[in-house]
Amino acid sequence: MSRPNIALDIDRLFARLDQLVAINPLPPDGACRLALTDEDRAGRALFNTWAADAGLTFTTDAVGNQFATLPGNTTGAPVMSGSHLDTVATGGRFDGALGVVAALAVVEAVQQAGLALARGLIVANFTNEEGARFAPDMLGSLVYAGGMSVAEAHAVQGVDGALFGDELRRIGAAGDMTPGAIQPHAFVELHVEQGPVLNAEGLAIGVVEGVQGISWHEVTFAGEANHAGATPMQMRRDAGFAASSLATRCRALTQTHTGLRATCGRMVLEPNLINVIAERAVITVDLRHPDEATLTAAEADLARAVEEAAEAAGVSASRVSLARFAPVPFDRGVAARIEAAAATRGLRRTRLISGAGHDAQMIARIAPSGMMFAPSIGGISHNPREATRREDIEGAVNVLADVLVSLAMEE
Amino acid sequence: MSRPNIALDIDRLFARLDQLVAINPLPPDGACRLALTDEDRAGRALFNTWAADAGLTFTTDAVGNQFATLPGNTTGAPVMSGSHLDTVATGGRFDGALGVVAALAVVEAVQQAGLALARGLIVANFTNEEGARFAPDMLGSLVYAGGMSVAEAHAVQGVDGALFGDELRRIGAAGDMTPGAIQPHAFVELHVEQGPVLNAEGLAIGVVEGVQGISWHEVTFAGEANHAGATPMQMRRDAGFAASSLATRCRALTQTHTGLRATCGRMVLEPNLINVIAERAVITVDLRHPDEATLTAAEADLARAVEEAAEAAGVSASRVSLARFAPVPFDRGVAARIEAAAATRGLRRTRLISGAGHDAQMIARIAPSGMMFAPSIGGISHNPREATRREDIEGAVNVLADVLVSLAMEE
Repeated sequence: MSRPNIALDIDRLFARLDQLVAINPLPPDGACRLALTDEDRAGRALFNTWAADAGLTFTTDAVGNQFATLPGNTTGAPVMSGSHLDTVATGGRFDGALGVVAALAVVEAVQQAGLALARGLIVANFTNEEGARFAPDMLGSLVYAGGMSVAEAHAVQGVDGALFGDELRRIGAAGDMTPGAIQPHAFVELHVEQGPVLNAEGLAIGVVEGVQGISWHEVTFAGEANHAGATPMQMRRDAGFAASSLATRCRALTQTHTGLRATCGRMVLEPNLINVIAERAVITVDLRHPDEATLTAAEADLARAVEEAAEAAGVSASRVSLARFAPVPFDRGVAARIEAAAATRGLRRTRLISGAGHDAQMIARIAPSGMMFAPSIGGISHNPREATRREDIEGAVNVLADVLVSLAMEE
Repeated sequence: MSRPNIALDIDRLFARLDQLVAINPLPPDGACRLALTDEDRAGRALFNTWAADAGLTFTTDAVGNQFATLPGNTTGAPVMSGSHLDTVATGGRFDGALGVVAALAVVEAVQQAGLALARGLIVANFTNEEGARFAPDMLGSLVYAGGMSVAEAHAVQGVDGALFGDELRRIGAAGDMTPGAIQPHAFVELHVEQGPVLNAEGLAIGVVEGVQGISWHEVTFAGEANHAGATPMQMRRDAGFAASSLATRCRALTQTHTGLRATCGRMVLEPNLINVIAERAVITVDLRHPDEATLTAAEADLARAVEEAAEAAGVSASRVSLARFAPVPFDRGVAARIEAAAATRGLRRTRLISGAGHDAQMIARIAPSGMMFAPSIGGISHNPREATRREDIEGAVNVLADVLVSLAMEE
């Protein structure tokens, strides 16, 4: 693959990441911009300002997805690249933001070089990728790809009780564009790995072949609050014990199903007092596997585990599915371009499956899509200590530029 | 035992329980008056008003314990009875409050009848019995019995971060009296059982022979926040899994040690998000057993369980003892009087061990002490649905009157 003759401004890219972090920094290097909060609004405003400074066309759709467009020389469908500017509560510097500022840097370098491309380039920022405030995650790209209606999205209630639609209007993030109105020629997302593989193996680029399937559940156990000292063990209806029992059973499921990842990251007991048996416990279960059949089998085992945990604790249980996405294979042609670009630049690379969900898996429903990973030091993610070396960022953004330009040069 | 010729005003007793509940009611029948909150201040003020209306001498000690005194005809040490007016966050109507209003009803009936007693009668309300806000529980009576200094008590930090001493001053609950200044001739506490035994067996009175030993712990697991999808199971340091693993191990300990009660009522994960491995988990363990040797053995097993849970989850652990009380035997003479009074009144009774901690176990350090239980319907406790039938309250308060008068008539 030939390299385009453009110069990427990596200093400005890092300065923009600094600006995003500065909205609501978390020591040592992270940030918190939960979707549709005032902090997210500030991040969106920065993106809008950068795009305006570059003279790009800026549009926003009805769920807040933002698009900055550099037109091409033909009417062919544009090439889209981007990611998300929202974070989890304990977010890192690069997760999501890198993919937006990198695509913007490529577009600016193309402008700067006066490079004539057949197709337009679009930089995208998708709303609520993380799902930390509103379930499901990747909600903005899901709606964009037609997997959820705008009305359904607006009715989603956040963990803090706020409605997605209300918050969207409150921060002025709702636009006129119909989600999906621009069907891209191809979509490419650069993201940090959020896992330890590339870093542990000394690799610079991950060529992502697909995304694990994701299955999110919220389980509520209902028992009876009673005195911790005066209630014999056999007469208890302990919702907290049920939740703990479920968490240990979920861990055991990862032994039964090779490659299964199971996480119980959220657990809330009521009344949550040292000497009162919990009358209510809410626990979340996050299951992931690259193979659909295995994920389905694990879900069936989870349903049984919930029943067994409830029975062992003498409580009742209810389970709600919060999100379910089948494993997604990415476009082979896009993956091949990423691999070729990395090879041309002499960067060490591997093919892998993404353990995390990403906007690219949604856009894959409507366009040939692919992803590339930059290494995460120590695999640390969703943590303010998330970090990637500057040389790895620079290499990855150059590969992204090669791939986007090559796609946009296609007639 | 002869019955004193006095008439108890049970209607007024129930009206006072209503007044206490009305400060901060919890449907259907409970209340919340956490120690040293504005709600606790309101409960204390009611007690003060009732005592003043009855012309009793009112004194408060340096940790907020309140005493209403009816003098006797001699200078002999007075007979003390009472309990506590604070509640857990999900408190019932009778837990604690009954013992205070019942003792007050006895004193008022003695006054009303013009009964001449050798010894004075004191109604006590002890501060922070529940421990729901400040650890340890029974803090007020512990200080009164000399088991903790006033300075230590004032420095205790509550679960909400407030200091005991600051809150005591804020609500104007600190008095001049030195804790322990009045050494009673005997102490008798009436309380609801907070357990199912009396109700299940159709009994009216529980003659309490002693209190289970109590051992409270707070365990903190420290791991690493990481992405739930991208982090292989074998590379995780999951503090939430460690906490759940400990909770299930604590339940298993109750199989190893017959009669052991183990409760993990409080659990807090951080960051507590569905797709982030918990980096920190704090869990409490409440162990109780009537036998000191067994409780000590269970504590050793708990220490091992903490280590094993931490190792299984790849995290570090620290454990803090929040409270430790050895099993307490009550005075045989006081128990015999309670049993005799119940027998004289034809009330069905049994002897039992208290599963809950009570102020009487602290006062037992400085005076012959005893306790009697009224039944709890369904054994429900620390729950707004806690309930006791009016006829059982009436029977129990009459037995309390018989016992207090007989003790106060002793030269």
